Amino acid sequence: MKAVILLSGGLDSSTVLYQAQKDGCECHAISFDYQQRHRRELHAAGDIARAAKARQHRLVSFDLRQWGGSALTDESIDLPKERSVDQMAENIPVTYVPARNTIFLSFALAYAETINAERVYIGVNALDYSGYPDCRPDYIQAMQEVFRLGTKQGREGQPIEIFAPLINLKKTEIIQLGNELGVPWQLTWSCYAGEQVACGVCDSCRLRLAAFAQLGLEDPLPYQTET
Amino acid sequence: MKAVILLSGGLDSSTVLYQAQKDGCECHAISFDYQQRHRRELHAAGDIARAAKARQHRLVSFDLRQWGGSALTDESIDLPKERSVDQMAENIPVTYVPARNTIFLSFALAYAETINAERVYIGVNALDYSGYPDCRPDYIQAMQEVFRLGTKQGREGQPIEIFAPLINLKKTEIIQLGNELGVPWQLTWSCYAGEQVACGVCDSCRLRLAAFAQLGLEDPLPYQTET
Repeated sequence: MKAVILLSGGLDSSTVLYQAQKDGCECHAISFDYQQRHRRELHAAGDIARAAKARQHRLVSFDLRQWGGSALTDESIDLPKERSVDQMAENIPVTYVPARNTIFLSFALAYAETINAERVYIGVNALDYSGYPDCRPDYIQAMQEVFRLGTKQGREGQPIEIFAPLINLKKTEIIQLGNELGVPWQLTWSCYAGEQVACGVCDSCRLRLAAFAQLGLEDPLPYQTET
Repeated sequence: MKAVILLSGGLDSSTVLYQAQKDGCECHAISFDYQQRHRRELHAAGDIARAAKARQHRLVSFDLRQWGGSALTDESIDLPKERSVDQMAENIPVTYVPARNTIFLSFALAYAETINAERVYIGVNALDYSGYPDCRPDYIQAMQEVFRLGTKQGREGQPIEIFAPLINLKKTEIIQLGNELGVPWQLTWSCYAGEQVACGVCDSCRLRLAAFAQLGLEDPLPYQTET
């Protein structure tokens, strides 16, 4: 059974890739260079794809910076720093990239239909990113309907299925799952800033560090800030 | 009122751009270089955007050729030629590009949300391309739901609306509409082959020529074949 896995190189999508492998899928990973702030995470995606022995790893490049609209695609918008996990959940943050998951899932769908894959895996999570509209179950359900109606396979009664195994998990539960699956955390990259060493203060680092700490585990990645 | 218009440079999308102008929209056109067989249609899109006085015209580039799966993205698959309009309607043709409209609409959504547009216009047509799954009303309805749930604007109760004004028109009716709107047909480009002069025998040329002929009108574009 073939599956396409959206792989950013972060903690969540890496866990999903290992989950897909465990589910018995032949894994075709796909990553995106959308002119995000840095390409550091794309290197991580490559490392993880190799470590997990994915059958293939595709990179799709396009430019979302031409219209910006997010702190991740416009450097004039500052990254939020040193916010608590509670503060992050309050609003849709400036790191929200308009329609990003819709674009990612669309390419995954195109790739999946071309190789006759049966599944697309995505590491969205509704709890920790409650501010992001395109990480919630009703959104995934709507995309599933597009997968069914917008493709030849779907019209013939065999729609490609979206799997979002992390959607209702807490970050701590994702780490526990990843530990069971043997995800090599040291190869992953979550930091929004793209320096040599993870910053430790952006929302993404904070969320990750808080979850490891809560579990009494150590994140094997080095950080600029001692926490 | 701002609108994003998907503009391929063909007869349908050009008519839609003029319709959006007539509807009173400030028009932001968007075109795609997906490594299709030729870039001829992108020049046409630029000409049409200028002729229609669109406020802006964006080009998004990415590579669908890397996985192919269509006669438009893989030159080893021959373009169908000299088929009758009835034959075209029978099956999903090899010119179908997996998930193409889903990808296009996703980028249009991202662009629309960034500029606070209220509408996205697309020139899909369910009658003449009945073989294409992503040109039918139920598919457009499913994408509308994605627009509603997958964006900040949508979650705040102001979803960007998809307008598909041609969806239930015949090709002849589209030409009549375009004539009323003053679409400069000589600037449009429909041919799948990308030579200097339109081939006249691919599905796209045939469909267009048949419709002009049925109306007793002359297509101002030159063709390689006298018809």
